[in-house]
Amino acid sequence: SVKQIGTTPNVRMARLRRLIDSKPIVRVLETHSGISGLIAETASTQRDGQTVEFDGMWSSSLTDSTSRGKPDIEAVDITSRLNTINEIFEVTTKPLIFDGDTGGKPEHLGFTVRSLERLGVSAIIIEDKEGLKRNSLYGNDVAQTQSSIDDFCHRLKVAKNSQVTRDFMVIARIESLILEQGLDDALERAKAYIEIGGADGIMIHSRQNDPQEVFDFCDAYAKFENRKPLVVVPTSFRQATEEELAARGVNVVIYANHMMRAAYPAMSKVAHTILEAGRALEADPYIANIKDALAIIPENEA
Amino acid sequence: SVKQIGTTPNVRMARLRRLIDSKPIVRVLETHSGISGLIAETASTQRDGQTVEFDGMWSSSLTDSTSRGKPDIEAVDITSRLNTINEIFEVTTKPLIFDGDTGGKPEHLGFTVRSLERLGVSAIIIEDKEGLKRNSLYGNDVAQTQSSIDDFCHRLKVAKNSQVTRDFMVIARIESLILEQGLDDALERAKAYIEIGGADGIMIHSRQNDPQEVFDFCDAYAKFENRKPLVVVPTSFRQATEEELAARGVNVVIYANHMMRAAYPAMSKVAHTILEAGRALEADPYIANIKDALAIIPENEA
Amino acid sequence: SVKQIGTTPNVRMARLRRLIDSKPIVRVLETHSGISGLIAETASTQRDGQTVEFDGMWSSSLTDSTSRGKPDIEAVDITSRLNTINEIFEVTTKPLIFDGDTGGKPEHLGFTVRSLERLGVSAIIIEDKEGLKRNSLYGNDVAQTQSSIDDFCHRLKVAKNSQVTRDFMVIARIESLILEQGLDDALERAKAYIEIGGADGIMIHSRQNDPQEVFDFCDAYAKFENRKPLVVVPTSFRQATEEELAARGVNVVIYANHMMRAAYPAMSKVAHTILEAGRALEADPYIANIKDALAIIPENEA
Amino acid sequence: SVKQIGTTPNVRMARLRRLIDSKPIVRVLETHSGISGLIAETASTQRDGQTVEFDGMWSSSLTDSTSRGKPDIEAVDITSRLNTINEIFEVTTKPLIFDGDTGGKPEHLGFTVRSLERLGVSAIIIEDKEGLKRNSLYGNDVAQTQSSIDDFCHRLKVAKNSQVTRDFMVIARIESLILEQGLDDALERAKAYIEIGGADGIMIHSRQNDPQEVFDFCDAYAKFENRKPLVVVPTSFRQATEEELAARGVNVVIYANHMMRAAYPAMSKVAHTILEAGRALEADPYIANIKDALAIIPENEA
Repeated sequence: SVKQIGTTPNVRMARLRRLIDSKPIVRVLETHSGISGLIAETASTQRDGQTVEFDGMWSSSLTDSTSRGKPDIEAVDITSRLNTINEIFEVTTKPLIFDGDTGGKPEHLGFTVRSLERLGVSAIIIEDKEGLKRNSLYGNDVAQTQSSIDDFCHRLKVAKNSQVTRDFMVIARIESLILEQGLDDALERAKAYIEIGGADGIMIHSRQNDPQEVFDFCDAYAKFENRKPLVVVPTSFRQATEEELAARGVNVVIYANHMMRAAYPAMSKVAHTILEAGRALEADPYIANIKDALAIIPENEA
Repeated sequence: SVKQIGTTPNVRMARLRRLIDSKPIVRVLETHSGISGLIAETASTQRDGQTVEFDGMWSSSLTDSTSRGKPDIEAVDITSRLNTINEIFEVTTKPLIFDGDTGGKPEHLGFTVRSLERLGVSAIIIEDKEGLKRNSLYGNDVAQTQSSIDDFCHRLKVAKNSQVTRDFMVIARIESLILEQGLDDALERAKAYIEIGGADGIMIHSRQNDPQEVFDFCDAYAKFENRKPLVVVPTSFRQATEEELAARGVNVVIYANHMMRAAYPAMSKVAHTILEAGRALEADPYIANIKDALAIIPENEA
Repeated sequence: SVKQIGTTPNVRMARLRRLIDSKPIVRVLETHSGISGLIAETASTQRDGQTVEFDGMWSSSLTDSTSRGKPDIEAVDITSRLNTINEIFEVTTKPLIFDGDTGGKPEHLGFTVRSLERLGVSAIIIEDKEGLKRNSLYGNDVAQTQSSIDDFCHRLKVAKNSQVTRDFMVIARIESLILEQGLDDALERAKAYIEIGGADGIMIHSRQNDPQEVFDFCDAYAKFENRKPLVVVPTSFRQATEEELAARGVNVVIYANHMMRAAYPAMSKVAHTILEAGRALEADPYIANIKDALAIIPENEA
Repeated sequence: SVKQIGTTPNVRMARLRRLIDSKPIVRVLETHSGISGLIAETASTQRDGQTVEFDGMWSSSLTDSTSRGKPDIEAVDITSRLNTINEIFEVTTKPLIFDGDTGGKPEHLGFTVRSLERLGVSAIIIEDKEGLKRNSLYGNDVAQTQSSIDDFCHRLKVAKNSQVTRDFMVIARIESLILEQGLDDALERAKAYIEIGGADGIMIHSRQNDPQEVFDFCDAYAKFENRKPLVVVPTSFRQATEEELAARGVNVVIYANHMMRAAYPAMSKVAHTILEAGRALEADPYIANIKDALAIIPENEA
C-alpha cells in the first residue's frame, strides 16, 4: 500500500528538508496508527482551485499514550513508539516528525536519535523542560521546571552529535510562553539553541487562545541573522490560518492531536448508542459503511 | 488504569464462561487499541432503569488489519495481534474473544492457542474455510472454499488439545449461510463440530440484511441435546435487538467492527475539514476538547 | 513446548513463594532468550544421588542489554524487556524474577509492576541507587549515589501498592556493601525496607571475591524478628556453595549472568575459527551437531 | 555502537551488491541477536598476512526459531523476525541476507519484501518447496514437496514486482539436490528462475558430506550466459574452503547456523556445571570474565 513510486528510508527522511525549502508552509498531521497514517497520506481536497494535502506526519507523545489508554507522562517507552512508527511507515511514504518530549536521559538520547534516523524519521522535537513530563496544556496548573539554557544546549548537542546523516533535524521546542517567562526569554533561548546547541529548527509553543504572542515571537525571530526553520502547533490559537502563519515566517504547522481527538468521541458515541439501543442499527449515521471502510486500504480495492 | 480490584490473566479468562452462565446475553464490543479497550471497559448507560455496559471485548482480524492500514488477508500475523491484545490488557479487566480467522496451519494453531491462553484471552473463534482469507461480507463475490467437516473437526481438535486450562473456549464459526449452503448444512456442521471436534461453542454467521435465516438456525439449534453457547455477529442484520437474540437462545452478541467504523470516518472528516479551511478551527464540532480526551485515561484525572 | 501439565500465569507466579517455603534454597539461572529459558527449564543432573535442576529464571538487565549489543545503562526499555519475557514464557513453566534496576521514575514503576504481574512474573528486585545506572561490578570506579532510606522506602511502597495479587513479591536490593558503606548501614536499610517500605524480601550484594561480608550480613540478618526471604547473587564470591549459603539462611541464589557469559565467548571463538581457517570444519569441536541442537526443542523431536 | 562513519538503510542495503561485484567471495555469518550481530561486525583476524572479517550477516529461519525455543516450522512469524533484525541493525552496519523459507503465501510475500527493504535488508532467499517447512537437513526422511517451476517462478515474480529499489535482491534457493532430483533438474530450475522468474541470484543447497555435487553444479552453472551471483551454504560439506568455492565461481558463502550452534552447547555446559558443583566456580573456564563480556559493547568501554 505504498504509493506507486514507493519510498526508501533515506528518501523519506530527506523529504522534510526539501519540502521546507520549497513550500510556503509545510502542513503536518498527527498520526498514531497505520490507518491515521493512511489518512495523512491520501486525504486531499480542492481549496481556491488548488489541490491541497498534508505534507507530513507527526508522531505525538500525547496521542501515542492516549491511543494506548495510558497517561501522558512518558510512560509509553521508545520501543513502543518505534513500533507505532514502523506500523505507519509500512503503509505510507510521507516524512514524519517525532515528538521527543524532554529527550529523556542524555545517555539514552543518542540511541533514540540513531533509531529514528535508521527508520527514516526526518526530525525530533525536544522540549526545554526537566523532570516528569506533564502535558503543556496544563500550563502552570502543574509544577513544571524549564531547563537552564546550558543544560538544554548540552541535550541538543548530544542529539546532533549522534546522527549519522546530514538530513536528520533536531528541533528545539521553547516552553517560555507556556510557563509565562515572556518573549525576551523565548528569543534568548531560540538564539542560544541555534548558535550554541546547534538546533536545526525552533518550535515556539503557546497555550493562549489568541495567536498574538506567537505572532510577536515570529516577528522578532524573523530578524535573526542565523534563522532556522520555525515550527508552530496551533492547538489553542486554532483560528490562525496557514496563510497567516506563513506570512509571519512559520515554516511548519503541526495539527498535533486531531486524529485522536476525532477518533475518541466518535468511538465513544457509537459505543453508547449501541448500549442505549440494545443493537447497532441506531449507530448507522455515525459509522462508515463497511465497504467504504475497507476501501481506504489500497490492496482491498483490487 | 485497571479498575479498583484489578484482575489477573486467569480471572479474566474464566470470566467469559461465568458471564455466559449467568446472563441472558453477553454483550461484546470490538476493540483494536488501548483506547477502544478503555471505551469497552467504561462505557455505561441507563436503559429501562438498568445500568448497561459491555461484558467483553472482541479482537477482530478485520479491524486489527484495517487499523494498521493493511488488507484483511491474514497479513497481520500473530505476533502483531498479540501486541495489540497486550496493549488492551494493560488497561482493561474485561474478558476478550479472539477472531482466529481460519486458524492458520494446524501445526501453528497449537502455539496460537497456548499464547492466547497465557495472556488470559478467553476464547478463539475459528471459521470453517480454507485458503486465503477474504472478508466474509464479500460472500460469493470472491471465491471461497469451505472446509470439509472432517478437516475442520481436526483443526478444532488440535486447538482443544493444545489448551492447558479448563476455562479457555474454542468456538467454531460456520460459514454455510454466507456461502449459501443452506440451513441443513449449517446444522449438520454445528452438530459435528460439537460432537466430533469438541467445540465449546458455535458462531453462526450471515450476510443477509434480514435476521430470518439466523433466527431459523437458532430455533433448530435450540433443540440440540448437546447444545453449546451460541454466538451471533449482527453486522448486516443489525435491526435484531439483543432482546430478540436472547429470546432465540443466542448467548453472545458481538458488535464486531464498530469502533473502527466509528473512528475512521471521524478522522477522515477532520483531516478534510482542516485541509479545506487551512486551519483547525472548523474541526471544533467534530473533535473532543483536549481535557475531555485526556480524562478517559484514569491516571490523568489525578 | 510447555511441559506435560503446562502452566498458567497465576500458577507460575505463585510458584516462587511456594518454592521458597518448601526448599532449603531456591536455585535461579539467568535467561535472556527462549533457548536459554529452555536450558533453565530442562537442565538436570545427579548430585549426591539426588536429581538437581534449576527452580527458576532471572531476567537480568545486564544480560538483556548485552544480548542486544547495548550498554547496561537502562537503555533497553520495559517494552523490550517484556518482549524477552514473553518469548521465554512461551516455552517454559518455571517462575521468573525480574531485575528492575532502580525501578525507574516512581510514576512509571506502578505500570511496570502491573505489567510484570499480568504476564505471571513472580518478583521484581529494585536496587537502592539513584541516577544513571552503571553495573554494580564497577563499584566505586564510577560515581554512584545510594538512595536515602526514605526515598527508597517510598519507591518500594509505590511498587507494593500497585500489585493486584497477593503472590507478587517486591524485593529490595541493598548496595551498601558495594558502595563500602559498611555492614551496619546494610542492616539498618534491610530493617527499614521491610518494616517501612514493605519489602517482601532482601537481596544483599557484594563485589568481594571472598563471601565473608555476605556471610556476616546473613548472620546478623538471621536475628531479625521480621525476617523476609534473603537473596544472594554470588558473582564475585563464586566459591560459596549453595549448601554454605543455605546454612547461613540464604533462601534464593541467583546465577545472574552465566548464560550470556557462556554464549558470548563460544560464539566469538567459532567466528574467529571460521575466519582463520577460511571454512567451518575447524569449528566442529566448538559447536553442537545440528541434530543435537534441534533436539532441545521439544516439538522437533516428534 | 555503530562504527565511526555509521550507515543508513539505503547504504547498508546496496552494500551487498557492491561487495559481490568487488570481492572474490562474500563471507556471511549467521546472527540471531544484537550480540551475535556485533560479533559478525567486529570479529577480525590475520590470515596469510591479510586482515579477514565477515562481510555480512544471515538471518536464519532455523536459528531465529531455535533461539526462541520454537520448532523450525515457520512458527516464528514475520513480525518476530523483523524485531530480531531491528535489534541487529541497531548495533551493526554490515548488510544482511534474509532466509525467507518458502516465502509464505504469495499474497503476503509482497508485504514481506517491502518490509525488509524498508529496514535496509539486502536480499531475501526463497526456496522452491511447498507446504509446511521442515529443515532441509532432514532431507527425504520427512516428506517434502518441491514446487513446480511455474509456481515458483510466479512466487519470484511477486517478490521482484514488490520491491521499490533497484538494490534489493531476490535469490532463488534450489532444493533439487536435497530432494535427490539430480543435477539436470537443478540446472533447469536455475535457468528458469533467472530467465522467467527474474531471480537476482541462485543458491544451490546440498546435504552431502562431500562437496562434489555442489562443485558439479558450479561448473555447469559457470557456463550460463545469463549467470547471476551464486550462493552456497556449506553446512554438511564444511571441508570446502572459501578459496575452493571462489575458484568454482561461488560468490557468497553463508555460515548459516554457527552462532546458535556455538552458543547452545556452551550455555548447556555451564548450566550443568553449576548444577553438578552446586556453585558457579567450576564454570570459570567456560565463561567470559564479566569485564571482557561487557567490553564487546562499544559504549561500555568509555
